[in-house]
Order: sequence, then C-alpha cells, then structure tokens
Amino acid sequence: MENRPVILVTNDDGIISPGIRALVEVATEFGDVYVVAPDSPQSGMGHAITLDKPLRITKMEVFGDVPAYQCSGTPADCVKIAIDKILHKKPDLCISGINHGSNSSINVIYSGTMSAAMEASIDGIQAIGFSLLDYSFDADFTGAKMYARKIINQILKSHIPSGTLLNVNIPKIPAAEIKGIKICRQAMAKWVEEFDERIDPRGSNYYWLTGRFVNFDHGEDTDEWALNNGYVSIVPVQFDLTSHNGIRFINKNWDFKGE
Amino acid sequence: MENRPVILVTNDDGIISPGIRALVEVATEFGDVYVVAPDSPQSGMGHAITLDKPLRITKMEVFGDVPAYQCSGTPADCVKIAIDKILHKKPDLCISGINHGSNSSINVIYSGTMSAAMEASIDGIQAIGFSLLDYSFDADFTGAKMYARKIINQILKSHIPSGTLLNVNIPKIPAAEIKGIKICRQAMAKWVEEFDERIDPRGSNYYWLTGRFVNFDHGEDTDEWALNNGYVSIVPVQFDLTSHNGIRFINKNWDFKGE
Repeated sequence: MENRPVILVTNDDGIISPGIRALVEVATEFGDVYVVAPDSPQSGMGHAITLDKPLRITKMEVFGDVPAYQCSGTPADCVKIAIDKILHKKPDLCISGINHGSNSSINVIYSGTMSAAMEASIDGIQAIGFSLLDYSFDADFTGAKMYARKIINQILKSHIPSGTLLNVNIPKIPAAEIKGIKICRQAMAKWVEEFDERIDPRGSNYYWLTGRFVNFDHGEDTDEWALNNGYVSIVPVQFDLTSHNGIRFINKNWDFKGE
Repeated sequence: MENRPVILVTNDDGIISPGIRALVEVATEFGDVYVVAPDSPQSGMGHAITLDKPLRITKMEVFGDVPAYQCSGTPADCVKIAIDKILHKKPDLCISGINHGSNSSINVIYSGTMSAAMEASIDGIQAIGFSLLDYSFDADFTGAKMYARKIINQILKSHIPSGTLLNVNIPKIPAAEIKGIKICRQAMAKWVEEFDERIDPRGSNYYWLTGRFVNFDHGEDTDEWALNNGYVSIVPVQFDLTSHNGIRFINKNWDFKGE
C-alpha cells in the first residue's frame, strides 16, 4: 500500500451529495483519499474566494475511514485550506464532483465544481472536475463512476501538462449506452437570460434569474456535440486566459500614437 | 448627439467607490452612460451568479443626469439584469471598474471586476475591465482616467474580436511617469496561500485567508513586467478556456482502449 497517491476530493454541492460519495468510492480504489467540501451548496459560485470573513473547518464522519471535512467557504477556498491546514502538503490529484448537472461549454465559467479543480491546477496539482448531466438528487451514477475510474487511472499513469486541467461531463443515459470518450473543445454556447419579474407583498419588484441554453456551435469536435451523441466529453481547460488572437489583432489594428 | 454609443458601467466595489465615479466621468465623454453596480462590495467573487435568491434593483441619484442603479447581486448578475431589465437591449460597450487594486495575471480568475466584463463579452458585447494598482479609497485616478480615455476611444473606433475582452491594469505611479501602453500576455504568477489561524472566545479555530503574490514568469511580454516597468498593461482575455495544447497531449499520450 506504499506510494499510493494522495487524492483530494471536493465539490460544490456539499459533503452529503450522492455525487461526491460516488467519487469518493472510485478515488479510494486508487489512493489515500481526503474529502474537503463546502458546508452549503455553492453552485454558480464561479471562482469566488472568501476575503471578508474567516473560514471554519469541521471534521465529519460520513465516509467510513476516509477523513472528511466541511469548510464554510467556497469550492476554491476548500482546496486552498485543504492544502494549507488539513493535508499540510499538495495532493497528487484533486478531483471535484461528481456534480449534479452539466458543466459543459460556457458553464465552466460559472461552475463551482470546476473552480475547485482550477484552484488545484493553479497550484500545480493534476486536477479534474466531473459532472453528470442529471440535476436530480437520486441520479444514477453508474456510468459516471465507470468513466471516472477510466479517466483517473489515465491521469495517474500519463498525467496532463502543467497549466491544464480536465472538464469531464457524462451524458444522462444508461451506462451501457455510453459510446466512449471524446477529447473536445469548449462549444460556443451561452445562456440567453430572462429574468422572471415578480412583486413582493409590500409592492416591490424582485427578479429570479432564469434562462435557456443555446448552442451556437455546429462543430463536431465540441463537448456539446459529444454529449448529445452519447459520449463522455473531456475538455482540457487552461487558466491562462490570454487571447493570442486578440494580441495580434490589437497590434495590427490599434494605434495609440498621437492621442 | 445622435448615434452616441450606449455604455454600461459597472464594477465590483459598489456604486459609491471613487473608482466607478472616475470611469463614469470618462464614459460620459463618449456615449450615453448607464450605471448598474452591486449594492455591496464583491471583491474576489470570481464569476459567481445568484441562483438561490432573487435580485433587487434600486434607482440611485449619484451621478447627476446619468441613470444609476444598485443591484443586490454579483458583478455578473449586474450585467445580466442591466441588459434584460434596465437597458432592454445590449449596450455598445461595457466597462467595469476602475477597481481599487490589481487584477493582473492570475487575479483575472478571482476578479469580480473582470467577471462583469466577461459576462458582457459572453453576450457579444465589447468589454473592458480597468484596475488601478492602489487599494486605498483615496487613490489618485488621474493616470487611470487618462489611459481609460485612450483605450475606450480605441475600442469604439477599432473594436476587438468577438470572444475577446480586455484586462487593463494601471500602475500606481504619477500620471506623468506612465511610459505608455503594452499589449501583454497574462503572467504565470500565483498567490502562495497561508491561512492565519486564530481561536475564537469559545475555543474554536477559525482561519483568515492571507497570502503573498509570487511571479514565476521572467518574460518581458507579460502584464507583470509591464506594470513593474511603468506601463499600463492590456491583456486580451478569452472565455473559451480550451487548452488546445492539452488536446494534442492527450490525443498523443492517453489510451482508453482495452480498459
């Protein structure tokens, strides 16, 4: 059992979600697992960190022998505090999820699940975020676990380049119907927002964020295409947001001289 | 005055910060300005959106004739609700800031200022986030305003490619000492976290996030280099996070067959 990798498991739904339990079950097959997850749901938190109040951590007994902690912060906070105050070192791998709901295409930007994985990647740690395209609490994680196992096995064996992490989404179909894995680019898709306007009992307006997801991308090399066609999608993601195309455009077309 | 561009101004510090006032003053030289900003400080909010509670908007009288609203949500929420419920159309330009404090290099990931600009860019709107490397409330915005004016003039004239936004940082030096503008890539730098552990009056531990910023990047084409050498930095930023290098690596080195 020596030289087993240390694996940090986190998520954005909290420690009692079935999705994190599924991921812990897979992770314990590969290494020594620690769980540090938010103490409240953090969906849509993007890459938020907590600056204006202190954090607290509480040891929990929820996964048998696997050390597990709740943290009062965001998913990114969980990864930071896990390294500094719980593991006291960097894990070999950080896995986040399995999220109940898609984090494909533009959702990577809003995703608490992916922000935890990105925080680990910024710190030089191999990292993956997993999401199942099923929002329900009693979602079937059979296929998701099967593919999480394959992907964790590969990343421990072959790694990914520094500065890169993986955004893995699993379609909502029976495990036996999943056709395999596609390595994809992020589809050009977005939410078309409509706020649901209501009036409270005191006569003031308030607004619920709603919206519908629109895929503007007809490419067959995208995560949306893969998921719609029965494949697990893996998008390698980077936190260097530089648009080199943008640099070339500005150098060619902009002129600050004489102003 | 016809055909003046519609400019949405927002930030993450709230409507009473001197930084947003400086940006409103510059913006009114160019177009018809609307201000929609958070009603509480939102630093470090990353690209968070509000899903679990409704939003409220309140009209404010703070910038004379310029219509201004406070919103109870995050910077990204402000942009979404401004388009759907206040402007009832997309503005020609969205500018966010001027932030009190740097959003250079990896800070783009954590930044509420940049998340507002990114939300506009996702919606197909030309967008810029401005930040001054001075955290103080009474920071001197003279140089920041001078360069905001140059950059807003250029983007209205020459635009930037779809899918791209600008991360502009201004050094904390007197306006006359700023050497000019550099178009840069995001430096490879990060925060090395250390949590400040304390004990509350009831004997429980709590942790404040602290850290020091470390630049691992020796390139002279980065935003950190530009700022340290007296230049305003412009990093063109994209919200397509796909790592094409990561795709090539995995296609070459990973093998899911036979598992």
